Amino acid sequence: MTEKSADIPRHAPPKGASTRQQELLYDPNVATSSHAEQARTLIERVGTATLCTISHSHEGHPYGSFVTFAMDGEHPIFLISRLAEHTKNLLQNSKSSLLVAEGGDGNPLALGRVTLVGICEQVSDDERPRLKEIFVQRHPDSKFYADFGDFLFFRLEVDSVRYIGGFGRMSWFGDVDWAEAEPDPLYSSADGIIEHMNDDHQDAMLLICHTMSKATDATEPVMTGVDRYGFEMSVMTGDGRRPIRVAFENTCDNPDDVRSAMVNLVKIARSKV
Amino acid sequence: MTEKSADIPRHAPPKGASTRQQELLYDPNVATSSHAEQARTLIERVGTATLCTISHSHEGHPYGSFVTFAMDGEHPIFLISRLAEHTKNLLQNSKSSLLVAEGGDGNPLALGRVTLVGICEQVSDDERPRLKEIFVQRHPDSKFYADFGDFLFFRLEVDSVRYIGGFGRMSWFGDVDWAEAEPDPLYSSADGIIEHMNDDHQDAMLLICHTMSKATDATEPVMTGVDRYGFEMSVMTGDGRRPIRVAFENTCDNPDDVRSAMVNLVKIARSKV
Repeated sequence: MTEKSADIPRHAPPKGASTRQQELLYDPNVATSSHAEQARTLIERVGTATLCTISHSHEGHPYGSFVTFAMDGEHPIFLISRLAEHTKNLLQNSKSSLLVAEGGDGNPLALGRVTLVGICEQVSDDERPRLKEIFVQRHPDSKFYADFGDFLFFRLEVDSVRYIGGFGRMSWFGDVDWAEAEPDPLYSSADGIIEHMNDDHQDAMLLICHTMSKATDATEPVMTGVDRYGFEMSVMTGDGRRPIRVAFENTCDNPDDVRSAMVNLVKIARSKV
Repeated sequence: MTEKSADIPRHAPPKGASTRQQELLYDPNVATSSHAEQARTLIERVGTATLCTISHSHEGHPYGSFVTFAMDGEHPIFLISRLAEHTKNLLQNSKSSLLVAEGGDGNPLALGRVTLVGICEQVSDDERPRLKEIFVQRHPDSKFYADFGDFLFFRLEVDSVRYIGGFGRMSWFGDVDWAEAEPDPLYSSADGIIEHMNDDHQDAMLLICHTMSKATDATEPVMTGVDRYGFEMSVMTGDGRRPIRVAFENTCDNPDDVRSAMVNLVKIARSKV
């Protein structure tokens, strides 16, 4: 199950160091995607990862290798050569995990990453045509070796998931939560929505911020994220840049839904001025 | 020891598929950095990786986690919290590996990656001030938690190295080769040299290509790499874009050496016209 922030053990700063927590400027109970949903969305956006296997040549050592992967439902699949170290490892010991990390600038430890733990086994030939279709669609270059005799499909049946969304946002969850979590429907359109809002709708964001959060005199709003449940801004305050999250009235499944939801939020905001 | 390409097992394309090998357009014995040197250079350029440990909570499973690292000589060091999964894992079992992968565009399997296999143990307090200095210089953000009581330094003593430089370029090598391999002295200046050559010296590259390789009527040269031993170009030929590697007369340790070496190559090339 998802850990609450309060359950997370605390770091141990040196004595005398400042540990002041800043007050949150928005409703802490604002609708937000679950950690399982965030992890599932991250996985959908990223197609490369580190496969961790048990080495066949270095006894008892875990072995990390670079892989491309696609998703068969909630389970990652791999098209890997019998000649490769990870394949030799898996054919001898199927215990494995997959680390998928978000790319990006800034402090790398602030970015999201997910570890999927489970059993990774070769998939039967019956399933090969279906998996080939999924895999080649995700990684078009793989069509050049998808029919090579030494390339095999493996699937990692996910048993447990570790998600770290950045500093202090982390959970373990199990196969049931993982199977139920759907990737955010806006994952492929979010970047475009964010760019459009930052280019053309700073006034609307500021109005929403001033009337629906505690940052009543914030300036310079920058949208930093959007998902089916709402959106996030970074705004300038007397204490420097601070995050604000605002929920949509209804869940949004596509950019048109977001447009309507934003119009609706602005209407509500105007009524509060 | 480094494998020769001829020793690498071959993939198994379907019957009837074309397996024609294109003739190399340059001297196959041209001076080139060793796989150990290429791996050591890649490690120097990249500061994030996947640490693979043996899970303390999922019996016998390898566990992959995202880490920042710095180099203490040829061994990676980590500044990690006692609260983190990988730290709990290492305190129970020190067998580990570290996958470091090059970033970049294009086919991800064409990019370089290195797996360092060895024993990763906590470093004694005596070494902490020295390691802190190395680590904070590589990752300035770490100064905010470098003195936290729950953060410990670990060092991975490298025993074996697996290098994959792209398609068909791969080796295993041991601790002696790894300890002897130095990062390329041009690793931090290479991008600037490449940009300058591509902007201002296409004529020189073409002259060198026409007189010192088999691509005697190539056009559109693009420098793609440079290291202490020479440089690589992609040139347009009747068979499409092909790689050309040319060695410097002497090893280059800095951009000034490269400038002299290029002038020298152009002189030699002119004498051959």
